[in-house]
Amino acid sequence: MLHLVIADSELELVPQSIADHPAVVNYAKRRGKKPEEVVLDSSYHHSALRKLKDGDRRGRPDIVHICLLNALESIANKEGKLRVYVHTRNDEVIYIKPETRLPRNYNRFLGLMESLFKNKVVPQDLELLRLEEKTLSELVEEIGPDEVFVMHEGGELMKPRDFGKVLAGFENPLVIVGGFPHGDFRSQVEGKKVSLYHEPLMAWTVVNELITNFEHWVL
Amino acid sequence: MLHLVIADSELELVPQSIADHPAVVNYAKRRGKKPEEVVLDSSYHHSALRKLKDGDRRGRPDIVHICLLNALESIANKEGKLRVYVHTRNDEVIYIKPETRLPRNYNRFLGLMESLFKNKVVPQDLELLRLEEKTLSELVEEIGPDEVFVMHEGGELMKPRDFGKVLAGFENPLVIVGGFPHGDFRSQVEGKKVSLYHEPLMAWTVVNELITNFEHWVL
Repeated sequence: MLHLVIADSELELVPQSIADHPAVVNYAKRRGKKPEEVVLDSSYHHSALRKLKDGDRRGRPDIVHICLLNALESIANKEGKLRVYVHTRNDEVIYIKPETRLPRNYNRFLGLMESLFKNKVVPQDLELLRLEEKTLSELVEEIGPDEVFVMHEGGELMKPRDFGKVLAGFENPLVIVGGFPHGDFRSQVEGKKVSLYHEPLMAWTVVNELITNFEHWVL
Repeated sequence: MLHLVIADSELELVPQSIADHPAVVNYAKRRGKKPEEVVLDSSYHHSALRKLKDGDRRGRPDIVHICLLNALESIANKEGKLRVYVHTRNDEVIYIKPETRLPRNYNRFLGLMESLFKNKVVPQDLELLRLEEKTLSELVEEIGPDEVFVMHEGGELMKPRDFGKVLAGFENPLVIVGGFPHGDFRSQVEGKKVSLYHEPLMAWTVVNELITNFEHWVL
């Protein structure tokens, strides 16, 4: 089973310190929510983000959305060979049941995340998504993989096909992919650093490469 | 060079016949546009769609968005080994320059498509996206591939790795992937029908599989 962690994801509710910023207030009003109940989104809260530490990388729920749509609809997931987790900048972990059919529509996905932050579990009956306070290290320890790989620009350059073969050589490999647009991990990450290309890749490209190349050797 | 066509995509402006439906009128007003200027989206125009022929499959710009984000950010595209085209249900073809960095945000993507339908080219200076009236057959003839493959539930079942090898054996293979949620192609499609899995897959899953497995043999 391949364990995939989208780590340090830039997925969070609007922080209190900018909840009264006009860009946030108007956006929340338009969506019929309170400012502190909406997910931070750099597309809409750009001017407010400039007041925040790390403002140039925060508010990217779109990255999580695309990574999850690709992972959950992959053949590996349908074959029961994959588990996906989202770890956020505020040290929350989202557990996702493999049979989850995530909203394809981005705005509905935001609504789902807002509900998850509020209720810690959605939907109440099926509990497809569950949110817990947890650091990346705690999550890795909990999963107990036989090897940890960290996708990193500065890691050992490997062809995706070769990396897929390496992954397939383990019973329970865990791969950490950064859920942020640029920069480095904020969490302390321990594991073998691997790079799949000589240029930076989007998080979802890395997710696609490692899942399909893992499938290549195990299916 | 691999040519990828997202065909019969459910990407269109709101049809005239439902432009006065309350669901459409309110949505357009909220976005500050005229009803006939907004892209049809099943998430918001569901009740209006019930009045349309094929209403259960139309209004899926999200499928195009995710397929394009995956294709354009792929390693194959960065290596100059890929061309992507979008063909729509109304027989328009969108040509996309490989260096295009598409909006990650879905709502901005909708805005871009609306601008493209209006101006036929965006942005005016770089012309990264260009829209022309053209059927799928005309597009295929224009590209002039040495082989055409059609991804189809009823096609010959091949492992993605094996299909990647087949693709890599051609100079200019063309692959047609349906840009619709379910059902069959509306256009007449000629080519070798291939299926990558014994269950239906989302369009973007097929796109990911065929691009990464093509890379596998050519990079």
